[in-house]
Amino acid sequence: MQESATKAQVEDVVLRLEGMGYAVHRSSGANRTILGVVSDGPVSGDPRLVEILDGVQEVVPITEPFKLASRAFRPQGTVIVLEDVRIGGDEVIVMAGPCSAESEQQVHASAAAVKRAGAKILRGGAFKPRSSPYSFQGLGEDGLRMLHDAAKAHDLKLVSEVMDTSQIALVERYTDILQVGARNMQNFSLLRELGHVRKPVLLKRGISATIEEWLLSAEYVLGGGNMDVILCERGIRTFETYTRNTPFPS
Amino acid sequence: MQESATKAQVEDVVLRLEGMGYAVHRSSGANRTILGVVSDGPVSGDPRLVEILDGVQEVVPITEPFKLASRAFRPQGTVIVLEDVRIGGDEVIVMAGPCSAESEQQVHASAAAVKRAGAKILRGGAFKPRSSPYSFQGLGEDGLRMLHDAAKAHDLKLVSEVMDTSQIALVERYTDILQVGARNMQNFSLLRELGHVRKPVLLKRGISATIEEWLLSAEYVLGGGNMDVILCERGIRTFETYTRNTPFPS
Amino acid sequence: MQESATKAQVEDVVLRLEGMGYAVHRSSGANRTILGVVSDGPVSGDPRLVEILDGVQEVVPITEPFKLASRAFRPQGTVIVLEDVRIGGDEVIVMAGPCSAESEQQVHASAAAVKRAGAKILRGGAFKPRSSPYSFQGLGEDGLRMLHDAAKAHDLKLVSEVMDTSQIALVERYTDILQVGARNMQNFSLLRELGHVRKPVLLKRGISATIEEWLLSAEYVLGGGNMDVILCERGIRTFETYTRNTPFPS
Amino acid sequence: MQESATKAQVEDVVLRLEGMGYAVHRSSGANRTILGVVSDGPVSGDPRLVEILDGVQEVVPITEPFKLASRAFRPQGTVIVLEDVRIGGDEVIVMAGPCSAESEQQVHASAAAVKRAGAKILRGGAFKPRSSPYSFQGLGEDGLRMLHDAAKAHDLKLVSEVMDTSQIALVERYTDILQVGARNMQNFSLLRELGHVRKPVLLKRGISATIEEWLLSAEYVLGGGNMDVILCERGIRTFETYTRNTPFPS
Repeated sequence: MQESATKAQVEDVVLRLEGMGYAVHRSSGANRTILGVVSDGPVSGDPRLVEILDGVQEVVPITEPFKLASRAFRPQGTVIVLEDVRIGGDEVIVMAGPCSAESEQQVHASAAAVKRAGAKILRGGAFKPRSSPYSFQGLGEDGLRMLHDAAKAHDLKLVSEVMDTSQIALVERYTDILQVGARNMQNFSLLRELGHVRKPVLLKRGISATIEEWLLSAEYVLGGGNMDVILCERGIRTFETYTRNTPFPS
Repeated sequence: MQESATKAQVEDVVLRLEGMGYAVHRSSGANRTILGVVSDGPVSGDPRLVEILDGVQEVVPITEPFKLASRAFRPQGTVIVLEDVRIGGDEVIVMAGPCSAESEQQVHASAAAVKRAGAKILRGGAFKPRSSPYSFQGLGEDGLRMLHDAAKAHDLKLVSEVMDTSQIALVERYTDILQVGARNMQNFSLLRELGHVRKPVLLKRGISATIEEWLLSAEYVLGGGNMDVILCERGIRTFETYTRNTPFPS
Repeated sequence: MQESATKAQVEDVVLRLEGMGYAVHRSSGANRTILGVVSDGPVSGDPRLVEILDGVQEVVPITEPFKLASRAFRPQGTVIVLEDVRIGGDEVIVMAGPCSAESEQQVHASAAAVKRAGAKILRGGAFKPRSSPYSFQGLGEDGLRMLHDAAKAHDLKLVSEVMDTSQIALVERYTDILQVGARNMQNFSLLRELGHVRKPVLLKRGISATIEEWLLSAEYVLGGGNMDVILCERGIRTFETYTRNTPFPS
Repeated sequence: MQESATKAQVEDVVLRLEGMGYAVHRSSGANRTILGVVSDGPVSGDPRLVEILDGVQEVVPITEPFKLASRAFRPQGTVIVLEDVRIGGDEVIVMAGPCSAESEQQVHASAAAVKRAGAKILRGGAFKPRSSPYSFQGLGEDGLRMLHDAAKAHDLKLVSEVMDTSQIALVERYTDILQVGARNMQNFSLLRELGHVRKPVLLKRGISATIEEWLLSAEYVLGGGNMDVILCERGIRTFETYTRNTPFPS
């Protein structure tokens, strides 16, 4: 509460919060009263709604808004098993490949190099999200087929990007992991549909997404029943233009 | 070119660029050669591809990558006409309304207040993009109908958000302007489809989109033949948390 | 406290806080205990120190760390009076002038233009903080004298930058307001000395300073007894390079 | 030049640049003329000054503005030798210690732990730059003496921060390396004075400094003749608040 808050204003805020179903604990100091708000059962509103009431200084959230994505829910972590490849286990699994599939020859040469270098998963785009409509937009299903054949020929798993709900069935047919690109990290229609897919989802971090927003996006997929979400840190946008993105430590 | 670039390296870069169809002009100083690259006709590649060649220091783009969205293409600007409402003309047109449609009563009270205050366009969400899957997601078609009826009753135009290609036909039926939210500013599947719609598109700036990326997203809509794009500056994400977003001057 | 915190861990944290002189109030929910920490009198440590104790999830500060710069301390605001010029009153006072003093002629022409345009205060640099040591560094005392004479001739007040404690006496002699540049906003030695000056200080916001840090820097000046601090919002550094700085609304 | 630039405007820009001493090379395309500007000898102005001339679209700098700090100037890199400690050689040298010197006992315990862990250099503050004037500001010369004695007792070198030109002589007496803190990275008066010191300078990156600005600050020290500058990457300020700073990869 503000320093200038009256007793009546404090009472009003307490009543509203209790009306929503929260338990309210008061800490009264010489200058200021702080209200601790805790929910023990079902409640009917977001406590931040009281921020507009008279006498309220600010509302400070204390716990994370995500549930299924939190360590509290799954303390042992997640291991995703694709036959002999275990993502999230003791081994570091590398995924590598070309930005986009361009030709049979290029894709096969890439897959051979990727295998030789010790990676386990081929990556490559058939649908490309391009900032400019004038850039190459990908080969579509032809590209997926090339990538699938090259992965198989070199005993690699395949991950490729899906950009829209209408592409899910197609991308699922050819790949082992479906990738959500940084630009689609908050395409909630897409995320929700991917919650019903039975293949892992690789979720790239949005270029300016906070870690909280990223985990909330994972929550959309997890909430649909697909518990196999891989988080891909790809760097964030900052004032520094020396590198394309600023990598964030994991 | 780098200071240490050899003559042969410079020649190689020039040959590659000319092979793509570019005209190349050299500026040779005491320490360094700079190549000016200009296209007078059709070319077959992005000149930035030469950045990986030996001896190249950096590639600096000189002109904007957007065309239809540039002032050069339409020096007189764009005016969008919705009967008696002219957006982009001399008058400042205000769009206002609730975050989301929640009930008949709330929507009608909002529309009345909006009209009274002098605004011309009602805004309100029926499909809400929420960071958290646990937040209210909107009333869908029921919400659109409420908004449409309230706008009509108060002689207002209506703008509402479309989140996915599958919602376009529905949102188009009830609204005068289709809104693309900040989180979907680079949902290129959605933008491309909106290029074929015959109603204006209000394109909100992505939370960390550069102005160039924003105009390139507009280019996706314009390129489909829909020349009525309204840019909505809604602030960007910065280190400052004092306000939710940092407004950007227009 | 963490969900997994034991009773003993909660007790330990409470004891430490009470040992520092704080009053501690508990809010215990089904899953988690929240401790409200309030000081009614003198205390001997920062409550954030407990963040490293076992079982503590996070420490969230509730009130602002600045005092003299807060509205609570001076609800009526500050008006700075320089003879007939009142900064912070009802009138908008404009300060204008060249980046740096370069010659008698340039400074006088600038002052004449500034006066004609209705501004009340001439600004111009004699000491210039330059990112590069190879850029022009200012005319020093000669520049100050030129600026002072031009301001006087055109009935203007003068503001100019002071970069170092060693320059304060000199800049104070020629100017009506001493400016602290954005790069020196956290030069605490300089700020502390300016607290003992009897002329107003114009404090520019650091390029990536939060509003809280800015007000804390003002607190250094105010704490020395100089209550005449003018805050100058000059924009912040963001990912957007379209404008040099991103203006922040006041 | 702008697409709409006239021949006369192009000529005017060329004349101005040649008047400054630059060589100008033209690349004329169907729509636009690009001028390449190269200096072979001494010039009398910054070519960016032409940006305000009629018909000019933008001025794009091609090479780095720093000289002594560039790899071109010292391709072999810098190794700083403090008796048996070689910073910048093959070995990774760790500097560690307390945030600030608080007592004899604390400093000696820290130094012992630092030595045991294999570090070669003790760090600790005697002058502390604090955002808030109400935080502990350091022990001053007493702290320096404690740090010096503890370093000596444990056969460690010592680095400590200098905040102001007036402290240089004092800090130099007790330490092996003088540290410039992030908040002072653009305190050019301080940097210039440190160019005349005969001990290495550890220059921390400003919280929102670009790499170019950081190297230009190093240039201030190098330009005074002190070639022993150590760059300390301490992370930058971004929108992400999950960690205090965002580390930047080196």
